[in-house]
Amino acid sequence: MTFTQKLREIQLKQKSLLCIGLDVDLEKIPDHLKSLANPILEFNRLIIEATSDFVCAYKPNLAFYEAMGERGWTTLRETLKLIPKSVLTIGDGKRGDIGNTAERYAKSLFNDFGFDSVTVNPYMGFDSVEPFLKNPEKGVFLLALTSNSGSKDFQRLKINGKPLYEKVVRTAKKWNTNQNIGLVVGATHPRELKTIRKIVQEMPLLIPGIGKQGGDLKSAIRDGCDKNGQLAVINASRSIIYASSGKDFAEAARAEVKRMVEEMRN
Amino acid sequence: MTFTQKLREIQLKQKSLLCIGLDVDLEKIPDHLKSLANPILEFNRLIIEATSDFVCAYKPNLAFYEAMGERGWTTLRETLKLIPKSVLTIGDGKRGDIGNTAERYAKSLFNDFGFDSVTVNPYMGFDSVEPFLKNPEKGVFLLALTSNSGSKDFQRLKINGKPLYEKVVRTAKKWNTNQNIGLVVGATHPRELKTIRKIVQEMPLLIPGIGKQGGDLKSAIRDGCDKNGQLAVINASRSIIYASSGKDFAEAARAEVKRMVEEMRN
Repeated sequence: MTFTQKLREIQLKQKSLLCIGLDVDLEKIPDHLKSLANPILEFNRLIIEATSDFVCAYKPNLAFYEAMGERGWTTLRETLKLIPKSVLTIGDGKRGDIGNTAERYAKSLFNDFGFDSVTVNPYMGFDSVEPFLKNPEKGVFLLALTSNSGSKDFQRLKINGKPLYEKVVRTAKKWNTNQNIGLVVGATHPRELKTIRKIVQEMPLLIPGIGKQGGDLKSAIRDGCDKNGQLAVINASRSIIYASSGKDFAEAARAEVKRMVEEMRN
Repeated sequence: MTFTQKLREIQLKQKSLLCIGLDVDLEKIPDHLKSLANPILEFNRLIIEATSDFVCAYKPNLAFYEAMGERGWTTLRETLKLIPKSVLTIGDGKRGDIGNTAERYAKSLFNDFGFDSVTVNPYMGFDSVEPFLKNPEKGVFLLALTSNSGSKDFQRLKINGKPLYEKVVRTAKKWNTNQNIGLVVGATHPRELKTIRKIVQEMPLLIPGIGKQGGDLKSAIRDGCDKNGQLAVINASRSIIYASSGKDFAEAARAEVKRMVEEMRN
């Protein structure tokens, strides 16, 4: 089964397009966890237990674990074990390097950590992406139009009248012979999201930027889904995992997730 | 002292533009090291001891350490301790993410690992690069025109008649208010290297692609240096660290380094 098919099945079974970004910061987790042996792991465990029946994916951002050093890598590994097989994992590292180096990243993320999919930066071109594409069951979300303000600096530059991100989108579509490429498109760009969905039709779109960054959930769903109302992966992180800073943080996360998923289903 | 000044000083003292890429692979190191407790660390130690008087920098590629898991991070940390202060370190991770995430990467690489400089992917724009620029003593090499074949896929696309990589170069020059930005330009593109040096004048250029990838040392030096014969950082990895697969690997590395540096000095 290709990654795209797997995503369809999981979204159908879970009745959810929601992905939770596990971008966990020791300074932001509730105080009562901080005396534990591994506060971040316990935080992740409680968040996952409280939300896994309502999501299609979890997306740990590698920077948050890398910043903890060796302990962070162990925490990430342990966190991945806590995620039920009924839900996808996205390793958000935005890696990208020449072929023989990209192979290392692919091996590390797919084989050693066991991620189902990863985010990859397209700037270095095909040989930097290819090592991630070999196994059709493993997915790659290529950065197209990111949710941040810097997306205007290069991604929106015009090439023969069309923006660079659109060139990335059309190129990704050509590279997608294994049906395992998706694109990252920020919810902060609703019009462009609509255009990109029209171009790619049946490719997954990972859509961050809901909540704190200002993206709108309704338009992300309306414009990000394919014709079957699928393949949009709507990511939210801080608005869910830090919904409360008290002992009720997991319940508060669940309530926020429920609210978002109900809005999605309507 | 800014990163650019520091690089000038070190290149002057060491009389060398050479950087050794510590992209070390367990499968490629000499057999007699493989029974040791940490073969990669011992390999790095012997390479560094044999070459540090002839180089201006060492550049570990993070993928090779990340691929070893927690042990890789420890090995990288220990390797950095072995590099004399008279030589710069470049953390080659090609990271890039939205502002609050890029801050984690910057903290991890500059503060925790203690790298003097890092490579960064420019695709996500200013807020993804800014966290790496705050300390003028720490350097950033932005990917401009990379040495691999995929560099043609996006980096060479024309924007108002000029290639994207040139836009990256000119933008980096504008962002360089702290005198700590350099650019990555593959030696596999000698004509473009010349053009880029003309544009940036006094910015460092990290030049990979010599040796196995087909770049020519002479033209890299001629076209990559500033008017004082400085600020080109010529990277070689496999041709040096795997110069011999026998017990004489460190001596063979030293001989190859000596040969290259003598060619540079002429």
